[in-house]
Amino acid sequence: MSSTTILSVPEGLKASDWRSVAAVIDHTLLKPEATADQVVRLCEEAMRFGFATAFVNPCYVALAASVLRGSGTKVGAPVGFPLGATVTPVKREEALYLLRLGAQELDMVLNVGALKSRERLLVENDIRGVVEVARDAGALVKVILETHLLTMEEKILACQLSLAAGAGFVKTATGFTGGGATVDDVALMRGVVGERAGVKASGGVRTAATLSAMLQAGANRIGTSSGVQIIKELGAEV
Amino acid sequence: MSSTTILSVPEGLKASDWRSVAAVIDHTLLKPEATADQVVRLCEEAMRFGFATAFVNPCYVALAASVLRGSGTKVGAPVGFPLGATVTPVKREEALYLLRLGAQELDMVLNVGALKSRERLLVENDIRGVVEVARDAGALVKVILETHLLTMEEKILACQLSLAAGAGFVKTATGFTGGGATVDDVALMRGVVGERAGVKASGGVRTAATLSAMLQAGANRIGTSSGVQIIKELGAEV
Repeated sequence: MSSTTILSVPEGLKASDWRSVAAVIDHTLLKPEATADQVVRLCEEAMRFGFATAFVNPCYVALAASVLRGSGTKVGAPVGFPLGATVTPVKREEALYLLRLGAQELDMVLNVGALKSRERLLVENDIRGVVEVARDAGALVKVILETHLLTMEEKILACQLSLAAGAGFVKTATGFTGGGATVDDVALMRGVVGERAGVKASGGVRTAATLSAMLQAGANRIGTSSGVQIIKELGAEV
Repeated sequence: MSSTTILSVPEGLKASDWRSVAAVIDHTLLKPEATADQVVRLCEEAMRFGFATAFVNPCYVALAASVLRGSGTKVGAPVGFPLGATVTPVKREEALYLLRLGAQELDMVLNVGALKSRERLLVENDIRGVVEVARDAGALVKVILETHLLTMEEKILACQLSLAAGAGFVKTATGFTGGGATVDDVALMRGVVGERAGVKASGGVRTAATLSAMLQAGANRIGTSSGVQIIKELGAEV
């Protein structure tokens, strides 16, 4: 398994070393108005600085895959994003298309409303549908919880259901519904999943200080659209 | 064609009469944390007050269809929502699933990034993919432009491409990406589509005064999660 899919913070990672930091960042551009040119630039930055992935919307996965081919940077894409409120077969179909187009990591949004309606089986099977498809392709699945919409009990349950469904990571937030990563949530999620899954902090991580706090709380992957700015803060020449 | 699918403001509609107003409102609940109980309540309100549709996320379409069966209120659901940035086959698959589950109106988000990348054919075919599927089922398709993300030229082009692809309505905004309906945008959209399509104003319509201004500017459908509050303002006993 590559260094970008390990379950906890890489040994020897220094939050002050921009190269180690870049290696745990999903370099992300998910705003709906992103153009093809901006996606190409994102991919070039991802390769140049050694970000873990370039993370783009489904319609740009084929483009990103063509730019990143042969590099150490993977293609990441979201599924059922950002509401998580579509039906399971559609999430599964979307995952299948994205894998065929070249995606290597899929961040799916869990069904928040179903979780709140106490439909545990629905939530778990919804995740499993995507995990099964991804496993066949050797791709990693991260489950986005939208922590800011959940109670403490729901956050814990969401982590447990993600583990039960075989997901590789749990992840804080989409950044589109009014909240983001907090140190407390990351620590809680790490507490539940232990070393059985990774923890990705995303939503509002815009500075090296915030990123460092997230790593310290137990995150081993960071999703941000401020990756270049952050490694610049840490001394990268950009 | 039913009164809820006409292309312009119904003759004799009085913005001061709550019953006429209710008949042009898509009674909407799309927040990701919405529960099954809240969806049932939405549908009951929609039937009780005569709203045009109950508008719910894909995962609740089957539930809404079961509650609304036999009533005059239709089931509406979004496609590719709210970013519009998934691939066309997935939008088409999602539309197919929703129609099978009982949806009668589909509000799809156009591919904003493709529009900005000047990929006219991609944008038009993306819409057509959903329109074709919906036509077979006798369902209405509204195309969400996300007007606040577009230039004037892009708004006009988006309307033209929606018409060319055979959509029944153009619609302002999802309400999820930081902007909503304005009177100017509604007037512009009506100017481009004339009587060839409907115009739905959505995103930030929360009062009877705003709703009335939107109708006056040329909207003939309103999407809002404040429908009950609005008709209460107009004298409905709620």
